[in-house]
Amino acid sequence: MYLEKINQPSDVRKLNKEQLLELAEEMRRVLLEKLSRRGGHFGPNFGMVEATIALHYVFDSPADKMVYDVSHQSYCHKMLTGRKDGFLYEDHYDDVTGYSSPDESEHDFFTLGHTSTSVSLACGLAKARDLKGGKENIIAIIGDGSLSGGEALEGLDFAPELNSNLIIVVNDNDMSIAENHGGIYKNLKLLRDTEGKAECNLFKAMGLDYLFVKDGNDTVQLIEAFKKVKDLDHPIVVHICTQKGKGYSPAERNRENWHYCMPFDIKTGKPSHSFSGENYSDMTAEFLLEKMKKDKTLVAVSSGTPTVFGFTAERRKEAGDQFVDVGIAEEHAVALASGIAANGGKPVYGVNSTFIQRTYDQLSQDLCINNNPATILVYAASVYGMKDITHLGIFDIPMISNIPNMVYLAPATKEEYLAMLNWSIDQKNHPVAIRVPGGTVISDGKPVTKDFSILNKYEVTQKGSRAAIVALGSFYGLGEEAAFEIAQRTGTAPTLINPMYITGIDEPLLEELKKDHDVVLTLEDGILDGGFGEKIARFYGDSDIKVLNYGLKKEFLDRYDVNEVLRNNRLTKEQIAEDVMRLTRRK
Amino acid sequence: MYLEKINQPSDVRKLNKEQLLELAEEMRRVLLEKLSRRGGHFGPNFGMVEATIALHYVFDSPADKMVYDVSHQSYCHKMLTGRKDGFLYEDHYDDVTGYSSPDESEHDFFTLGHTSTSVSLACGLAKARDLKGGKENIIAIIGDGSLSGGEALEGLDFAPELNSNLIIVVNDNDMSIAENHGGIYKNLKLLRDTEGKAECNLFKAMGLDYLFVKDGNDTVQLIEAFKKVKDLDHPIVVHICTQKGKGYSPAERNRENWHYCMPFDIKTGKPSHSFSGENYSDMTAEFLLEKMKKDKTLVAVSSGTPTVFGFTAERRKEAGDQFVDVGIAEEHAVALASGIAANGGKPVYGVNSTFIQRTYDQLSQDLCINNNPATILVYAASVYGMKDITHLGIFDIPMISNIPNMVYLAPATKEEYLAMLNWSIDQKNHPVAIRVPGGTVISDGKPVTKDFSILNKYEVTQKGSRAAIVALGSFYGLGEEAAFEIAQRTGTAPTLINPMYITGIDEPLLEELKKDHDVVLTLEDGILDGGFGEKIARFYGDSDIKVLNYGLKKEFLDRYDVNEVLRNNRLTKEQIAEDVMRLTRRK
Repeated sequence: MYLEKINQPSDVRKLNKEQLLELAEEMRRVLLEKLSRRGGHFGPNFGMVEATIALHYVFDSPADKMVYDVSHQSYCHKMLTGRKDGFLYEDHYDDVTGYSSPDESEHDFFTLGHTSTSVSLACGLAKARDLKGGKENIIAIIGDGSLSGGEALEGLDFAPELNSNLIIVVNDNDMSIAENHGGIYKNLKLLRDTEGKAECNLFKAMGLDYLFVKDGNDTVQLIEAFKKVKDLDHPIVVHICTQKGKGYSPAERNRENWHYCMPFDIKTGKPSHSFSGENYSDMTAEFLLEKMKKDKTLVAVSSGTPTVFGFTAERRKEAGDQFVDVGIAEEHAVALASGIAANGGKPVYGVNSTFIQRTYDQLSQDLCINNNPATILVYAASVYGMKDITHLGIFDIPMISNIPNMVYLAPATKEEYLAMLNWSIDQKNHPVAIRVPGGTVISDGKPVTKDFSILNKYEVTQKGSRAAIVALGSFYGLGEEAAFEIAQRTGTAPTLINPMYITGIDEPLLEELKKDHDVVLTLEDGILDGGFGEKIARFYGDSDIKVLNYGLKKEFLDRYDVNEVLRNNRLTKEQIAEDVMRLTRRK
Repeated sequence: MYLEKINQPSDVRKLNKEQLLELAEEMRRVLLEKLSRRGGHFGPNFGMVEATIALHYVFDSPADKMVYDVSHQSYCHKMLTGRKDGFLYEDHYDDVTGYSSPDESEHDFFTLGHTSTSVSLACGLAKARDLKGGKENIIAIIGDGSLSGGEALEGLDFAPELNSNLIIVVNDNDMSIAENHGGIYKNLKLLRDTEGKAECNLFKAMGLDYLFVKDGNDTVQLIEAFKKVKDLDHPIVVHICTQKGKGYSPAERNRENWHYCMPFDIKTGKPSHSFSGENYSDMTAEFLLEKMKKDKTLVAVSSGTPTVFGFTAERRKEAGDQFVDVGIAEEHAVALASGIAANGGKPVYGVNSTFIQRTYDQLSQDLCINNNPATILVYAASVYGMKDITHLGIFDIPMISNIPNMVYLAPATKEEYLAMLNWSIDQKNHPVAIRVPGGTVISDGKPVTKDFSILNKYEVTQKGSRAAIVALGSFYGLGEEAAFEIAQRTGTAPTLINPMYITGIDEPLLEELKKDHDVVLTLEDGILDGGFGEKIARFYGDSDIKVLNYGLKKEFLDRYDVNEVLRNNRLTKEQIAEDVMRLTRRK
C-alpha cells in the first residue's frame, strides 16, 4: 500500500503516474472504511482525492500554504501530511479531527469549520508574506457551495488588490449541501458547458485571472494545471470540476444525503443505526407544512441547510414557493426574512446556533431596529449539540438576547415549542427567535394556553420556599431534578420556575420571591458570560437574595464529553444541591 | 418654486421636462443651504437628484416600493415624498432624520443606515408580494461603494432566484466613502468604458439582466430607462453613472472629504467651525506610522472608513503597502487580519463600534478560535458616539466581550490607550480589541508601566472603604466624580478601580474587597445587558456584597440628548451618590 509509506507530502512526489492513481484508489478505500464506521463528511472528501494528491505533488507544503474552506474536505490532505494513521487504523481514528487544525500539523494554518472563510484567510497569509518579502505559494481551496457566502465574495473581490501570488482552487461539484441556489451557479454551469471559455465569467468580472480544468478527478490534468499557476505573480482562480461522492455509487446517486454520513453498511449504504421516534426537525417541517396550507403568506427560509428544520427534498417540493433556500448566505436570509415580514409575509428561518453567528448585524439592524415579525428557529443550541470547536451551540444567548426588541424564547417541551412557534407566526409585533430544544423530545402532553404576547412572564411550576430555581429551556429538566434533590436533602421543597423568555426579566415575580426565599439559582444551557443568569444576578444585586448562576464557562470546548463538561461546571443535580446546602449552612 | 408645491410623488409627474430640470436645480440649492447649516451626507445626495426625480416620475410610490441602501442618499426622496419642509425651512430641519424611516413616511419601508442591505431587504418585499399575488414594482437603489459588502453580494446572487419583478438601480459614482477597492470596480469601469456592452459583466455573471444608463444625472435618459424596466417580470440591474457631489464644485473636486460634511461656508466650502486639539484618530495614525517605519510587518487595515483611525489620503500614501483598505467588507477585514497575524504580520484594524457588528462570526471563528494576535481598534463606542438609531456605539461590549480568547481593553486616558496599543501590536498571544475613548482626549501625563500580558489585573487608583467603584474606560472620569461625591456626602472615601480589562474579572481583587466593603458599583459606557457589570454581579452573587450596575438600558436610542439619557439611567455623580446613601441607610 502506497499510503502506508506517505509520511509527508514529499513522499507523494516520489510516485509515478500509475502509482498516483493507485494511491487515489487506496485513499478512497480507506475513507470508505473509516466513514462507514465513524461517519463524517463523505461527498466532499470523495470528490477531492485527486485534487489533493495533485496539490501536494505540485506544491511544497508547509512552505506553500493551503487553506481548505470549511475544511470538511481536508481528510485527504490530512492523509498526505503525516496523519495517515488517523485514517488507516481504527485505534487512531480519533487522533484527527474532522477539520483542519494547526494543533495537529504544521500543514494546517487555521482551525476552521464555517464556510466561505478560506479566501480571506489566505489573503491574510499572502499579505503577511508580501510584507515579509516571502515567495511561497498561498492556496485557498473552496467549494462551489461556499461561494455564495458573503465573506467568500468579499474575499474574492479583495483578492486582486494583492497584486501577488494567490491561487484560489474552486472545487465545483455542482452542489452545496443540498442543491445550489443563486445566480452565480448559472455562471458556473455556463463555464462548465463552455469549458471555461465563456466571456461572461464571474471570476474575471471580479478582477481575477482564471484557469479551467475540465476533469477535476483526473490527477494528470490537475498536476498540469497546478504547475501552470505555481509561483504566479498575481491571484488566479483554478476552476476544477469534480464529482461529489465519486467512487461510491450510493453517494454518487444521492449527493445531498451523502454530504455527511452517519456510520453505514458499505455494501448497502444503509445506516448502521436507525434513529426512530420524534424529533424537532421533522416536527417543525410538518407543523409548518400544515400551517402553510391555510396561509399562503407563510414561508420557510433556509440558508443551505434545509434539513435542519426538517425540509427534506420531498417536503421542499410540497412547500413549493413557500420554501426558500438562499444557499449559504445567512446574512441575506435574515434580511430577506425582515423584508418579507415588512411586506406582510410570515417568514420562518431555521438555522443552527453556530451559523446564526454570521448575522449579528442583520439581526440588530435589518430585523430588530425595524421590529419586523420574523421567526427564527435556532437549532443545536446546547451543550448537547455539535461538539467540534468550530460548531459549538453555546454562544447564541449572549449574541442574540442582548439585542433590543428581540424576543428570544426557550421552550422546555414539545408542547411549549409548538405553541411558541404558532404564536410567533401569527403575531405582528416582535421579531421572535426560539431556542429549539435538542436531543430527545420531551412531551408532557399538557396543553399550553399561555399568552406569549405578555412578554417576560415566567411560569412558576412548583411553589416552594427558601431556594428558587429558574431553569431555562433545555435545562428545565435539570432544574426539576435539582429541585427534587434539594427537597430531599433539606426537607424544604424549592420553588421551580420555567422562565420561557430569555430576553427579559419577570420583575414582579422576582420581587415576590424576596419574601420567602434566600437564594435564587439560574440554569442555562450555554455560556454564563453575557447570558441569562447574569441578568438575574444584576436584578438582585442590591438585595439580600443570594444568586447562584449555573451554565458553562466562557471557553472554546472541543470534541468534549458532555457529562464531564457538565460536572466541571457543577451542572449536576448533586452539585447544585451541595452548593445550596453550603450556602444555607453558611448563613 | 416647484419644490414648494410637491406634496407627493404624483406632483412630480405633473411637471414637464423643463420644469423637471428646474426642480433639480431647486433641490440642489435647498440641499446646499441645509447641509451648509447642519451638515450631513453631501456627495451621495448631490449625485442622486436626477435619479430620484426620475424614479418618482416613473414609479408610483408607495405602491411601488423603493429601498435606498444606507439611505444616506435618500434626502431627495424625502423632499419628493411629502417631507420637503424638512429641507426648505430651518424650523423644520429636524423633522426628518438623515436616513429612511417608516415612522416619518409611508414611502419608507425600513429604518436603515448600514451599507449593503438594500438588495436583500428588497428581495424580501418582492417575495412577500409574490406570495400575496401583488404586482407592484420593488426597487433597490445601491451605490457602487456598497456593492463590496458581503450582504449585498449575497443579495445579488439570490435575486435571480425570485423570477419576478425586482429592479436594482446601481448608482455608480466611482467612489466609496474614499476611493473604491476591489476587483469588481475594474468591471464597473469596463462597463462604463464600453457603455455597458462588455461581455464580461459582473451582474450578468450573477444571473441578472442588465441595462446601462450613460448619464445618470440626465433626467430624460433616466426616465426612459426606468420606463423600460417598469413592471418587468424578472430582476434587472439598471447601472446608472452619476457624479458624486455634482453641482457644487468643492464637492466635485474633493469627493472623499465631501462624502459627509459638517456645517460650512457656501462660498468657500470651508467648515464653519474649526476643530482643534488632539484627537484619538490622528494620534493613532501618527503612532502607527511611526511604528511602521521600524517594523515592516505592521499593517493598518480599514474597511472603507480609513479616516476613522486617522488614515487620511496623505497618511495612506505614506504608509504605502502597510495600509490596506478592503472596501466596505468588514467580515473580510477581520479574517484578513487573522490571516496576516497567522503568518507573522501585525495587523491593526480600525473600525467603528456600529460596523464591527458585522463581524461577530469572524471575530469568533476566524480570529478567536485561532487565537491570532491581531489588534482591533473600536471607535465611537460610547453614548457620546453617533446618535442615529442605526449607528449607535453602545452594543459592542456584549457582542465582543463574551467571545472566548478575546482580550478587550478599555483605556481611560491617552497614555493608557497608547500603551495598550503598543502592547497589543508587540505581543503574540491574544487577539486584542481596544475600546478607543471618544470625545476630548484625556491625558494625565502619567507613564504607563503596566504589563498588560498579566490578564484581568485591575488597577486600584484610590484605596477607600465601604463602597468600591469599578469605572470602565470612558466612564472612568464619571467614576472619579462619583467617588468624590460619595466621599463628600458620607465622609468615607470609596475605593476607585480602573479595570482596564472588559473580558475578565480580577477575582483576587474582588475577593479582597469583601473585607472592608459593603457595596461595589460598576460603571460602563454601553448597555448593561450582557455587559461588564453583570459579570461582577454574578461574581458577588453568593456573597454579602451588594452590587449596583450602572450603564444604559437595552434599547435602540435615536437622535438623543446625551445628558437626558445619562440622567434616565442614573448616570450622574449625584444619582450614583444618592443610590449609595440609600443602600447604606437601608442596612
